[in-house]
Amino acid sequence: MPEAGELTFLLGGARSGKSAHAERLVTAWPSPWTYIATAQAFDEEMVERIALHRTQRAQGWQTIDAPLDLVEAIADVPDGVPLLVDCLTLWLTNHMLAEHDLEQESARLEAALARPRGPWFVVANEVGLGIVPENALARRFRDEAGRLNQRIAAQADAVLFMVAGLPLKVK
Amino acid sequence: MPEAGELTFLLGGARSGKSAHAERLVTAWPSPWTYIATAQAFDEEMVERIALHRTQRAQGWQTIDAPLDLVEAIADVPDGVPLLVDCLTLWLTNHMLAEHDLEQESARLEAALARPRGPWFVVANEVGLGIVPENALARRFRDEAGRLNQRIAAQADAVLFMVAGLPLKVK
Amino acid sequence: MPEAGELTFLLGGARSGKSAHAERLVTAWPSPWTYIATAQAFDEEMVERIALHRTQRAQGWQTIDAPLDLVEAIADVPDGVPLLVDCLTLWLTNHMLAEHDLEQESARLEAALARPRGPWFVVANEVGLGIVPENALARRFRDEAGRLNQRIAAQADAVLFMVAGLPLKVK
Repeated sequence: MPEAGELTFLLGGARSGKSAHAERLVTAWPSPWTYIATAQAFDEEMVERIALHRTQRAQGWQTIDAPLDLVEAIADVPDGVPLLVDCLTLWLTNHMLAEHDLEQESARLEAALARPRGPWFVVANEVGLGIVPENALARRFRDEAGRLNQRIAAQADAVLFMVAGLPLKVK
Repeated sequence: MPEAGELTFLLGGARSGKSAHAERLVTAWPSPWTYIATAQAFDEEMVERIALHRTQRAQGWQTIDAPLDLVEAIADVPDGVPLLVDCLTLWLTNHMLAEHDLEQESARLEAALARPRGPWFVVANEVGLGIVPENALARRFRDEAGRLNQRIAAQADAVLFMVAGLPLKVK
Repeated sequence: MPEAGELTFLLGGARSGKSAHAERLVTAWPSPWTYIATAQAFDEEMVERIALHRTQRAQGWQTIDAPLDLVEAIADVPDGVPLLVDCLTLWLTNHMLAEHDLEQESARLEAALARPRGPWFVVANEVGLGIVPENALARRFRDEAGRLNQRIAAQADAVLFMVAGLPLKVK
């Protein structure tokens, strides 16, 4: 694996199989693999989901929790190591709830992903294909998530839209 | 038509034309055709929708209502007969409202669709591409529907994602 | 540019980059270009969005506001002029709120777009891929929007489904 790498962006709805597909793509490379998890447990439901995700991953993974400091976590990934970031949308949620400057955070993330130093795989949720949400915060979140997805898709080498566990190649 | 068949899975949003497209695919085969409807009328709106669907279908169809007993209805379909199941998501809703074991029901359905005995077409809704629903039941339903879609897509011979009445071939 | 033209239909979720992509496609033709905007400002959020869209467009555009009278505005577009209509879903919303006959309005729009007199690009929202909305008005709107999208897609020469700023060719 050369120092230079490729960025693959996997986008999909809830339970579209995007994380599982991303894990398959990452583990097609030799281990060790780095997993950066952005999930933050606010309630019991989330604690269970996170724990389930963790136990479902096989050996060979180094898992790093980065609900907010994703840019720093990416900077620490060794050259050539296959990386899975899951997911950008939760990371954005965390920054939104912390009332951080989303434009600034998004720009920093975009820069951090601009030169992959290995086979990097980044997962995000598509949340903009339903009815306009009734509350203003949800509408703003939907806009910010969509904008971030566009930025990352623009600089990704490959973009996959996941449908029922199957990848549709968009780029 | 041989005893062995093929399973086509049509997935799409509300009013994406998935039922109409599935009917076109089924009726490209010689009649008679079997239609298994899973809709259950809880209110006037649903009664109207079901009646409308029924009258819109031409002759040559045998319609079977199976809001819950879909597996049994599929078992009764004669060999070689083209089949349309519309739709898995309503069937899942019905079992969820009846507080049945969804994992067990999904596994039974998966087995029932594993060996199509004719050209079988199965329709389902994609419901996971909007904002995270505020109520927990809707979130659980979204997860279950997505999981079921992944299972059926995995064993289908062909998967179509419907967009504004047009099929995108995913598999 | 001959009198006859082509209709391109761009469909996507919120912040999927459909307007920006449509503008790129239109401005690949020589100016002047006609922009028909259907947005209607009900509140401050909308006023800001409309103003932002307007200032983001470069010179060479003639902008026409047609929150309701879209059919008439299309009739006035000179032969051979590249046209962008953004978007059908807001236009449908405006007619729904005005309690007009949506079937009749949709049929008129369909007829107006049947014979493009130049390179015409029409944008609409896909809103049917989330959980079933709880309120009946939202459900009805979702159905009407989906039906309109199917009608326009059926007669379009090209249909693009936008994902994170990237076009998926559906037709």
